[in-house]
Amino acid sequence: MAFSKGPQAARITSTDVARAAGVSRATVSFVLNGTSTARISEETRSRVLAAADELGYVPHAAARSLRAGRSDLILLPAAVSATGRLFSDWVDDMETALGERGYTVVLHGNRSPDPVTAARAWAQLRPAAVLAMAPNSLTAEAVQVLAQAGTTAVLTIAPEPMPGVFTLLGDQSDIGRVAAEHLVSRGRRRIGVLMPTERGLSAFAEPRLAGIQRVATVHGATVTPLPMPYGGEAASALAVLCRELGLDAVFGYNDEYAALLSAALNDHGVDVPGQIAVVGADDLLLAQIVRPQLTSVRYRLPAADLIADTVDSLINRGTAEPLPSVWFEPVPRQSS
Amino acid sequence: MAFSKGPQAARITSTDVARAAGVSRATVSFVLNGTSTARISEETRSRVLAAADELGYVPHAAARSLRAGRSDLILLPAAVSATGRLFSDWVDDMETALGERGYTVVLHGNRSPDPVTAARAWAQLRPAAVLAMAPNSLTAEAVQVLAQAGTTAVLTIAPEPMPGVFTLLGDQSDIGRVAAEHLVSRGRRRIGVLMPTERGLSAFAEPRLAGIQRVATVHGATVTPLPMPYGGEAASALAVLCRELGLDAVFGYNDEYAALLSAALNDHGVDVPGQIAVVGADDLLLAQIVRPQLTSVRYRLPAADLIADTVDSLINRGTAEPLPSVWFEPVPRQSS
Repeated sequence: MAFSKGPQAARITSTDVARAAGVSRATVSFVLNGTSTARISEETRSRVLAAADELGYVPHAAARSLRAGRSDLILLPAAVSATGRLFSDWVDDMETALGERGYTVVLHGNRSPDPVTAARAWAQLRPAAVLAMAPNSLTAEAVQVLAQAGTTAVLTIAPEPMPGVFTLLGDQSDIGRVAAEHLVSRGRRRIGVLMPTERGLSAFAEPRLAGIQRVATVHGATVTPLPMPYGGEAASALAVLCRELGLDAVFGYNDEYAALLSAALNDHGVDVPGQIAVVGADDLLLAQIVRPQLTSVRYRLPAADLIADTVDSLINRGTAEPLPSVWFEPVPRQSS
Repeated sequence: MAFSKGPQAARITSTDVARAAGVSRATVSFVLNGTSTARISEETRSRVLAAADELGYVPHAAARSLRAGRSDLILLPAAVSATGRLFSDWVDDMETALGERGYTVVLHGNRSPDPVTAARAWAQLRPAAVLAMAPNSLTAEAVQVLAQAGTTAVLTIAPEPMPGVFTLLGDQSDIGRVAAEHLVSRGRRRIGVLMPTERGLSAFAEPRLAGIQRVATVHGATVTPLPMPYGGEAASALAVLCRELGLDAVFGYNDEYAALLSAALNDHGVDVPGQIAVVGADDLLLAQIVRPQLTSVRYRLPAADLIADTVDSLINRGTAEPLPSVWFEPVPRQSS
């Protein structure tokens, strides 16, 4: 297939609108940006709007925000690939809730080596708010970079409140703690922990491992981290390794990785949970689809509408009511 | 938890940088945007860069693009929730490949009722390129809106080349065709087709259904569309319905929906594939994890690096070499 440009549409600027309406560019700008301080007659306003409509002129969001001194852009740093359905459903709900409140939401796949470099990349888009929900995605210096670029609302999830950041209280290590307490209560003492090697996931995997290690220490259990890329061959190799190591339980990072390992254990004749118990996290539908059904750790963020109201309040009033903490609970099924 | 603003960082603008460096704002702009036409001494350039660094000033991407007349922003319209891992992995690869070429990629969750309204929302961000990969997400008028806003590269996947759009040739109906040919070859003649009710998926589900219907007509098979929200209760109800309708096969839209229905059929004592064969699409790892293992339809887009080179070429040279078409093939497993 050869690519051919179609009939090339000329770029339409506010100058074209001004010419068509017989007014100045400043007047076009006043009308289209709803600047209330300027006195413009209803007749002129109608003429400008008609000309803009006729020409198909779309105002430039960034130019508008430059003039108005504020942006309607809300940035969610997120690597979409590895997050799993729990987070992506939440992002979808946030897009709806913030869209209903007049904001434009964009996702920015974070590839920066550290929080300050990441914050600089986000700041270039001049978002009104940044929702940095991954653990350790912010530092004081990163928050400063955003504030200096005019971002008025920064949200995160963290175990402790962060200065200058609206913090939803929640601790990834609680997921590991809940999983480990469940396994220990079932008599398991030799626990493997899947550590995904995919980009961006160690920020979630490391605190989950730490939570497991704390429980294991109390109960004299051993903990073995097991690095795992998401793939059938790696799962197969790890299944053999789990058997060789004499593990009696594996925490599978989340339901997707746990289900993959559980299937591989089954392929290698290892009885789940007879020989090795498997626990996931996120409580996806997947946990109920696979056999044996997968024990999981359920957790829930505050509703998207609640968070959207918070963002709106932070942008417009600089303050917001506290939100409920993230909560966690075990969901025992056949695999443990 | 009460939210308290931390030490408020003052907003830093190019005026602050100009003051600190003892130069004009225009000079700051010339230096930070690398405008080559302006003659600025090395000493002045160093002073400006040092001041910007000292103050922690981050250039505004949109302001830079306004001045330079071009944007480095690439917009991918995508509802992250319902796309599934195949697409989200591809998006992740595209973000990496385009990032390596100096572009900033943002995802825009498309909530617009029609292509033109959607294009207007995208156009407000003034992207250099729009990668609108969902079927029917563009019309000639929508392409015009983008061109008028200065977007130089628009890409899509479609069965036929679209004027003014770089079209990757690929047809969602081929997924249905491949699935139906497989089922018919196994003697199935009463085919149910899952139709997800989630936002944004009918654009994929409708052509898949059409592809199945074309094959069914040729072979005297019946086709029954079955609307299904992604959830355990809906799957359970549909499993009962499939049995009542006397279906002997179900095309499950994709592997995630197909696996959910297959598990529900199993729960209701329906033998898969003995009584009802199930086929998914995307060939996710999930298809190998569930029991019975799921027959699927595999398809692949051209590599992200290849598409990124195409985008780069369209932006900088207005033209690009053709890319290979999307291809499809059946992957038979236990469920059919």
